[in-house]
Amino acid sequence: MNQKISSTLLFVTSNPNKASEVRKILNKNGISFHHMNASYQEIQSSSLKTIATESARCLYERLKTPLFLEDSGLFIEQLSGFPGPYSSYVYKTIGNSGVLKLMFTIANRTSRFESVVAYAENDNDIHLFSGIVLGRIADKKKGKGWGFDPIFIPRNCDETYAEMGIESKQRVSHRYVAFTKFSNWFKTHG
Amino acid sequence: MNQKISSTLLFVTSNPNKASEVRKILNKNGISFHHMNASYQEIQSSSLKTIATESARCLYERLKTPLFLEDSGLFIEQLSGFPGPYSSYVYKTIGNSGVLKLMFTIANRTSRFESVVAYAENDNDIHLFSGIVLGRIADKKKGKGWGFDPIFIPRNCDETYAEMGIESKQRVSHRYVAFTKFSNWFKTHG
Repeated sequence: MNQKISSTLLFVTSNPNKASEVRKILNKNGISFHHMNASYQEIQSSSLKTIATESARCLYERLKTPLFLEDSGLFIEQLSGFPGPYSSYVYKTIGNSGVLKLMFTIANRTSRFESVVAYAENDNDIHLFSGIVLGRIADKKKGKGWGFDPIFIPRNCDETYAEMGIESKQRVSHRYVAFTKFSNWFKTHG
Repeated sequence: MNQKISSTLLFVTSNPNKASEVRKILNKNGISFHHMNASYQEIQSSSLKTIATESARCLYERLKTPLFLEDSGLFIEQLSGFPGPYSSYVYKTIGNSGVLKLMFTIANRTSRFESVVAYAENDNDIHLFSGIVLGRIADKKKGKGWGFDPIFIPRNCDETYAEMGIESKQRVSHRYVAFTKFSNWFKTHG
């Protein structure tokens, strides 16, 4: 395996679950990184790509070392994309039970999980890698998992992300898709 | 009345309803302004004051003229403050009917509307004026009004903001309280 280890490559997130998921994916691809356990300022936007780009640019300006971050969101078609880029806030306030209440009488439960990885190696050079998984909102919470994992069922599956368990989820998830794209690019880049 | 007219004082908002409400309040207080019909970048934060401060600072940096803006939100106690600083996004996606669904089985409907006015006259001199009105979420939409006005009943009232009509609302609203504070300060300032 083409091993590329950078002692200064940072992954910035204050979410330990995300850090753990990403470490498993990148280590399999031979990429090591330092987890910087920190939160950072995000802008408001309906586009994950815009939010991730601005965050990476600001963090690079401050830290001046190659770094990446990830922003993700659950977009529910019949709720005009809600909770979308504010998934984290919505999870913390109304949670899975709130989203299920909103979907109570809605037959079309189509939704998608999106992940955007932003990699910065200088102020004006932000690279984006996205992963999208289509699916539907479950009728009730199933399985134990973080965030909206207990209510999201990927297309062609019968189980929620949470029911699958971390190993199986990581073979199909939006985060897996985005970080695999990032890994493939990173190993051959520069 | 102490009339203070500044030809360069800007109120920046892309919301024509807000512009109209604010013009009525400030004109009564003898303050004229130019409405700049523009949207601007906001940061993500659970604090309206933090969001308004950063927005005013960034706008002043760009425009270099005295300006003010307003950020407001509906905070529902039993939903951990949701929709709070993201009230505009939540209104555009799930709307009043979504909030009513979330409150369907909740007896304690206590909530508050908050308004924060941020006035900037140089990069490092942001003045904040806040208005809070306590109230409750109605059982159903009542009256015609914008935003969450049809579902918010101020304390000691039987009508929603929307039922009151614009004139009556303006005598009690969170926006009225914040802009009255701003007016009183502005007329005697400097």
